[in-house]
Parts: sequence; structure tokens; C-alpha cells
Amino acid sequence: MKVLVINAGSSSLKYQLMDPDTEEVFAKGLCERIGIDGRLTHKVPATDGKYEFDIPMPTHAEAIQAVLDALTSAEHGVIKSMDEIDAVGHRVVHGGEKFAGSVKIDQAVMDALEECIPLAPLHNPANITGIRACQKVMPNVPMVGVFDTAFHQTMPAKSYIYALPYEYYENDKVRRYGFHGTSHKYVAGRAAAMLGRPIEELKIITCHLGNGSSVSAVDGGKSMDTSMGFTPLAGVPMGTRSGDLDAGILEYLMNKYGYDIKEMLNILNKKSGVQGISGVSSDFRDLETAAKEGNERAALALEAFQYSVKKLVGAYAAAMGGVDAIVFTAGVGENDGPTRMAIASGLEFMGVKMDAEANNVRGKEAVISAADSKVKVLLIPTNEELMIARDTAEIVGK
Amino acid sequence: MKVLVINAGSSSLKYQLMDPDTEEVFAKGLCERIGIDGRLTHKVPATDGKYEFDIPMPTHAEAIQAVLDALTSAEHGVIKSMDEIDAVGHRVVHGGEKFAGSVKIDQAVMDALEECIPLAPLHNPANITGIRACQKVMPNVPMVGVFDTAFHQTMPAKSYIYALPYEYYENDKVRRYGFHGTSHKYVAGRAAAMLGRPIEELKIITCHLGNGSSVSAVDGGKSMDTSMGFTPLAGVPMGTRSGDLDAGILEYLMNKYGYDIKEMLNILNKKSGVQGISGVSSDFRDLETAAKEGNERAALALEAFQYSVKKLVGAYAAAMGGVDAIVFTAGVGENDGPTRMAIASGLEFMGVKMDAEANNVRGKEAVISAADSKVKVLLIPTNEELMIARDTAEIVGK
Repeated sequence: MKVLVINAGSSSLKYQLMDPDTEEVFAKGLCERIGIDGRLTHKVPATDGKYEFDIPMPTHAEAIQAVLDALTSAEHGVIKSMDEIDAVGHRVVHGGEKFAGSVKIDQAVMDALEECIPLAPLHNPANITGIRACQKVMPNVPMVGVFDTAFHQTMPAKSYIYALPYEYYENDKVRRYGFHGTSHKYVAGRAAAMLGRPIEELKIITCHLGNGSSVSAVDGGKSMDTSMGFTPLAGVPMGTRSGDLDAGILEYLMNKYGYDIKEMLNILNKKSGVQGISGVSSDFRDLETAAKEGNERAALALEAFQYSVKKLVGAYAAAMGGVDAIVFTAGVGENDGPTRMAIASGLEFMGVKMDAEANNVRGKEAVISAADSKVKVLLIPTNEELMIARDTAEIVGK
Repeated sequence: MKVLVINAGSSSLKYQLMDPDTEEVFAKGLCERIGIDGRLTHKVPATDGKYEFDIPMPTHAEAIQAVLDALTSAEHGVIKSMDEIDAVGHRVVHGGEKFAGSVKIDQAVMDALEECIPLAPLHNPANITGIRACQKVMPNVPMVGVFDTAFHQTMPAKSYIYALPYEYYENDKVRRYGFHGTSHKYVAGRAAAMLGRPIEELKIITCHLGNGSSVSAVDGGKSMDTSMGFTPLAGVPMGTRSGDLDAGILEYLMNKYGYDIKEMLNILNKKSGVQGISGVSSDFRDLETAAKEGNERAALALEAFQYSVKKLVGAYAAAMGGVDAIVFTAGVGENDGPTRMAIASGLEFMGVKMDAEANNVRGKEAVISAADSKVKVLLIPTNEELMIARDTAEIVGK
């Protein structure tokens, strides 16, 4: 089976054509500058081929058409015709409370996605545009929506409710949704496989640490809490995002500087996080270089980030009444050994014992805790595309 | 030595006359409705006397005068003349980064308190007014300022820095300050005494749970983290306060309902917390009654509060690399056994084992963990007034 995985942003579109059973990736790539001019980067793993094209992409429809042309091209294609594409899996950021799992896309689902736009005004319209563009050029191919929020719909009310007037939940859907669900679900599943134990009996803390970061408590395979909230601004400090805040700060800064709430949120989303603290970069590699060169604010940014994640690990262990495994994934989690060490060290009181040598690894599945560590610490590269392809194949196969 | 402890609010003034060495309280009471009409409630513990008077109090000066009159009254007084008052200790909410301990009040201190007004626009002006009123009627009595924020000034930068543009810290003093410091310090000290161990070698988590709540990590006697932040709105859900939030919620609600930031903060400060979730009450006793009668939102409010505190206990244990004692104090912490149990149960993985029978206690010092619990769980009634009186005596005695 060949599944095309689509992740559409406002001016970009990532794709991967893969077989969810064999996990073989036939081709993958990226359309950029949609609506501006248009650029396609197309890669074929089997031949290590990388191809770049300037192609006019006034809308996502032209981008999708360019992807299909690339996939079926005689020179750098991987399939003979688009009839070989059995299904398309779309990443959708926000499913609200309507979707606790992946779904086959029909008109009712499209209507529901429209309804979720107020909850994700930047992301959902792009996702919807991507789906419509695909439907236009592939009207007969079944499509599946896979939601960033769905995995977290198992959270109990004590985890998702905010301490606000309840009407904001009932009438306005203000609650913790959580994001990165596909990633948390994938790595939790892999952790159970690596430990050779049924996920139903495991308490796992998954740390998805990248430019955007979130931490989840996965109890018996189900998300019971997660650090992102109503929006992906919440939780730990990120590349440029502030994480959770004292709302009194917003009032103080807005009054002092005359910001309106839009300007304030732009600062919290784009100019905060480790970038804000350090003044150096939102990229953890840059921060580590700067910190080594003696930049104190870069060092503080790293420390503050690591400390926030460490506190969440403790918090979620308490929430679940213990922890069997801690998983690191995503850009920082997979590649930044010192950060993993800073987070997971000093937790011997709760049964965590790191192995410095084992932790000296990047980008592949590994046990990085000591042999006698009661809690296993794991590095597991995430694979959201595979997860989306699998869900798509399963739903279409029904 | 007789110390008068003053806690001045915007329209109220609490007082206690006590001997910090013997801990004897000679008299205590409350002036209310200052600036409106004026009402004094005066109590004399030795005789169980309680006296109420309507006395015009256009300003705090008249309130202080009424307190002195009551203290020296032939009928219900406890001293012959105000010359018997050796010193006055004033509770001050916000000392910013200027005060890491209590100080004798002089003009420089008053100037510094004025400078801190933007950080605590509701509280510090009332505290300053209270100090000025005392100076007016007792010009020759030494006065000491004891700050809610001072104890937390030992926090490392990773605990107090927000992931915001660093300029907001450097130029605008936006950082975590923390509050309830006098209470956290007092109960941490008592915990060490109860355990018979030097505080320098203890890791203590202090849970000050009342209408306002905060949790602190006290490592070696020093605050290393605390849940309240730049303002007392932050941290766990409280009676009517939201605690930490996803700032995206503010943008969403402000856009949807046209609130300005002042209206929004008023909702977060006055209509949120357990009151907001439950729609029933900000009082935990009311919530427990309602929950027992089947009110699901009251039950959820309690659960969400307990769960937030439990997560902080785990977080701070991780932050300190372990914990020797968990302390409950303040109105809810001292009196609400079921809430203490909900917070501290299920933490066996980190060495906490509660004793249900021992936990069936209120308002007095007690060990409420099981005899074989590695981590001791303690109930310790707070006594901020005693702490203020002690600091005052010590500083004046120098």
C-alpha cells in the first residue's frame, strides 16, 4: 500500500509517499513559498536523489499538482501514475473535542474542521486548504485526517480544565487540548516495544523537545496530561515561545508599553523562549556554542529550559503515581545529549539513573539509562509521518 | 519585649501585640472599613475578651490611633501606655529585588518601597500608608519592614527568569518574586525543629494552601523555587485566582468578548480559581459540602486544585533531587484532611506514605505520614505574625 502523507502549512506543504507496512519511504519533499512564487524540493531516498524546482504555486492546488508531477515524473518519479496512491493522510493541527482519533474525511468532517478554526486560526485553515487542494486533483482517492490533538482527548477533566469561569469551557471550548499528539503516541508505542512490555501496564513520560516542545504523561498507553494547552504557546519555554505565564505580566507590560493583546502575543510567540532569554538564537546548537564561549544568558536559557522540563518529569511522575520510562524525542531530544543529561540527572530519588556513555548518541533508538536504573530512559526518534500513514492505511482498509 | 505587628491593607489593618520570646499574644484585632466609616474588633486572649467599636477612620492614622487607644484602654487594654511598645513590625508585600531580608525602616527604605509600587500596585501603597500612619502616632518607636518576597530572593536565576525577552527583566524587573515568604520560612524552620535535624541538610516542600496558595521548594533552608510569580496570581488555582495560564487564552477571550486587559485580569483574579470551576464558592468547606451532595463541578474544582498541588510536589522534588519533608499549612492545609490526603497519596514511588488516622487532625503540629514513610509529611500551622515579631525584635535589638 502506498500512502501520501501531507502536512500543509500556511505557505508550505510537506509530503512523504510511503508504505506503512514496510515503512519504506519512496519520496519526500517540501513545497515552499506557496502564494508568493513557489519552490519544490523533492527527495528520493532509494537513489539519494535531491531535486529542486522553481514552480509557480499561487495556491496549494498548484503545490499538490507539482508534488504529483514530481512523484510520477519519468526522471525523478517513484510511481508510474497517481493511481498508485492508495490513500492520502493529512496532518491536522486541531480537532477540538470532536476527534479522539483519526477519521476518514467526508463533508461532515470538513464542516467540523471549519468549526475548529477559531481554536487554531493559523493552522487549521492551512490544513483545510491542503485537503481541498488534494481533493481537487485526486477526487477519487480516500483521505484521512490525523489530528495533533486527538491522542490527548483521553485526558481526565482535572488535567484539561482551566481554573477559569466554567462557562468559558462550556460555551467557548477553552480547555487544555495539547499538541504533538501523533509524536507522543508514536514514541510511547515504541517505548513499550523496546521494553518488551504491554503499553497498558506502563507509565511513560514522553519529552518531545524541539523548536516547539511538549511533555506528556502517558498512563497505560493513554495521554493523561500534557504541557501544551489551549494553544501551542503553553508549557515549557520553547525556541521562541514563552510557555505558561503569570497573566499579571501581560497586564504589566501592556500597560507599561501600550501593547495591545495581539502585539503582546506576538512577542510571547515569536520573541520569547530561549531566544528571548539568550538574545542569541532559538536554536539549541547556537545556544550551546554561545554558552561554551562564556555567554551567560545563553547558558541561562539552556538551564531554564532544562529545569522546566525536569520539573514536568517530576510533576508527571507524581500525577501517574510513578514512572517506568522517560522518552526523549524530536530535534533537541534526539540530538542533544547534554540537555537530556541535565534533565534526567539528579532524579535518583525516583529511580532514574543515567548512563553517560550510553547517552552519547544521536538520532537512533537507544536505552540511555544505566543497566540498574529502575526507570528506563530512552531515546526514540519520532516519526509522525509513519504514524499518519499507518492510521490512514488502517482507516482506509476498513 | 513587646512588638506590635501591623498588616495594613487598602481599607483594613490587622494587628497583634506580642512577645516574640515567650510567643505570648497580649492582644490582636482588626480595623475594617478604613476610609468608609471604621470598625475595630479587638481581642484579648488572656481573658477571652472580644470588643467591637464603631470608630470613624477617615485614614489609616485614625485606625492606628484607635488600635493604640484599645491597647492602652483602662477597660480592655493590655498595656499602660504606648511607651511599652518596643518596636513595630510591618508586613510589606513586595520588596522587589532590593530586600532579601527584613530591614529597619528609614527614609531610604521608604523610598525603595515607593519604587516597588509598580510591582504591587494594590498592596504596597496600603503597606506604606500603614507605616506612615504608625510613624505619625509613634514617632520614636523603631519600625521594621518584613517582606513577603524576601525569603524567595535566594532562588537561582533558572527558577526566577521568565522565558521572555531579557530586557523585561533587566529594565522592567519582570521575574518570579514569589509571595507568602514569611509563612514558607516559618513552617520550613518548624519542620526542621520537628524532625530534629539542621535545616541546612533538609529538602522541604512547603504547601501554603489557603484562599491564596503557593508551594515552595526549600533546599537547605533557602527558597529555591516557588509557585507564585511576578504577581500572586500565578501558580496553582486558588479561591478565585486562575494560577498559571496559557496566554493564548487571554487573546482568545479578549478578542471574543471585547475585554480589555484590566477586565480580563479582574476575571482571572476575582472570578476564576475553584470559584470559577465550581460556580459554587471560593471556600473549600463549601466545595466539599457541595461535592458530597453530588455537585460535579465542585468535585472537579477540588480535584483540579489537589492535582495541581500534587504535580508541584513532584516538580519540586525533581528540582531538589529529592525531598525529606512535605509540609501543609494555612487555612486549607491546616484544616482539610481529605485535601492533604489527595495531594500526598499515590506518591509511594518517591517515598511518601500517608497515615490516614494521623491525618485526621486539624490546626496543630502533627506528623501525618506513616512511621515507615521515608519522606515525612507534616501539618504545621503557620504563624506569620510571630515571624514578623521575631525579625523585628532581632533587628531592633542589634
